[in-house]
Amino acid sequence: MSTAPDPATADRATAVPEAAVPAAPDPATAGALALGDDALVLSHRLAEWTGHAPVLEEEVALANIALDLLGQARTLLSLVGDEDELAFRREERAFLNVQLVEQPNGDFAHTIARQLYFSVYQELLYGQVAAGAEPAPLAPLAAKAVKEVAYHRDHAEQWTLRLGDGTETSRARMQSGLDALWRYTGELFRPVEGVAVDWAGLEAAWLRSVGDVLERATLTLPEGPRGTGWSAGAGREGVHTESFGRMLAEMQHLHRSHPGASW
Amino acid sequence: MSTAPDPATADRATAVPEAAVPAAPDPATAGALALGDDALVLSHRLAEWTGHAPVLEEEVALANIALDLLGQARTLLSLVGDEDELAFRREERAFLNVQLVEQPNGDFAHTIARQLYFSVYQELLYGQVAAGAEPAPLAPLAAKAVKEVAYHRDHAEQWTLRLGDGTETSRARMQSGLDALWRYTGELFRPVEGVAVDWAGLEAAWLRSVGDVLERATLTLPEGPRGTGWSAGAGREGVHTESFGRMLAEMQHLHRSHPGASW
Repeated sequence: MSTAPDPATADRATAVPEAAVPAAPDPATAGALALGDDALVLSHRLAEWTGHAPVLEEEVALANIALDLLGQARTLLSLVGDEDELAFRREERAFLNVQLVEQPNGDFAHTIARQLYFSVYQELLYGQVAAGAEPAPLAPLAAKAVKEVAYHRDHAEQWTLRLGDGTETSRARMQSGLDALWRYTGELFRPVEGVAVDWAGLEAAWLRSVGDVLERATLTLPEGPRGTGWSAGAGREGVHTESFGRMLAEMQHLHRSHPGASW
Repeated sequence: MSTAPDPATADRATAVPEAAVPAAPDPATAGALALGDDALVLSHRLAEWTGHAPVLEEEVALANIALDLLGQARTLLSLVGDEDELAFRREERAFLNVQLVEQPNGDFAHTIARQLYFSVYQELLYGQVAAGAEPAPLAPLAAKAVKEVAYHRDHAEQWTLRLGDGTETSRARMQSGLDALWRYTGELFRPVEGVAVDWAGLEAAWLRSVGDVLERATLTLPEGPRGTGWSAGAGREGVHTESFGRMLAEMQHLHRSHPGASW
């Protein structure tokens, strides 16, 4: 607990009136901010399952994944600035996460579809960052995180196979989740400033990997446009969907109003 | 995920109409049930902090403690029967946790007071069970869990010291939490069937340990009656406080109504 806020000074949280992030993020840290926001937002979505998962084992699994992502978010955001200021005192427009991770949980299959799409992406992305000629700050994080994310991807794959190859109902729900979230996958491959990976190669590898899992699960890779327009592809520019505003408002309101934050 | 429920059979959860636990618990497993319920209920209370903790670091810490407790609960409840049936399909009156762990979170200091009281208790209790001539089923769990609980106790102690020795406000809130929960501490030392420890010795050690922390934190050990009557001491007999019913109703309602539980 050595770095926990000192109660004698923690009321700075209410004393700082301005958003902690400039309107135009620093190019040197924009990549850490974008990837950190992805992890932060998905962590909070997954944490919403705590106490509500279908079985205790799954509650543990989802909570563990949420914790991994929260750890990644803390590391990435602390490269940019004060992690708590960034999480709790930033305007919605300054969050750079992709819209996929902010989508509501829906039913369990919907959550698993989101996990499959995102964890395959994240594993490939971190793998390239860890292996590439990336500037030093992101490479060590990516090398550590890619091992965690490999577990997340395996978890999502196993559930996709179980649900896809399960009952008629579970299969229909899984396909429905995959179809509904498909439009948010195009944005994943828009280049992120400061993250020098082969984005076209990443997208091709993602399509192969997701396609392979869905085929084994007797599910169908959705077709049609994968949002690149305003409505489903501008998260990296700070444009977010309605439900994100609600999630953020709750997260930040409770932080700002809670006595623990203002002692 | 190898032991996760098969989607083809998971609808047993809605097909079993009866509570899974007999009105009078089996003496051989009553101890595991009581200690398992303590861990399960506190785990869910702590999980309520997820997304609402004052700082990200503390969110991680509380979520980790909740996960440890959930793991202990799963191990203990699986000694008694089906862990999911026990968690999600039992009547309130069949839960044997002490009333302390079901008390609402309150503010952060209130939660820390609850953590201090309970983690000191649990560390001493598990320590005796691990070292004692206990029947085999509980001893290995206790030996593993006592290491986790030592961290929980250290976390609660460090925060008690920070808040008690912090600002005037933080000190007042911490003392207020300690005072409010004091009446629920007497029940901790009522003997639990099937758990053969020295309960009087446990209580004396608990008072010394808690008293020492509070003295170092410039806080006062509350005085007055430590509930042994009906209103604050009958959790082990299935008598619970109003807020527990609400927590349980939400936890079990979401489980029963969630599509993931009935596929």
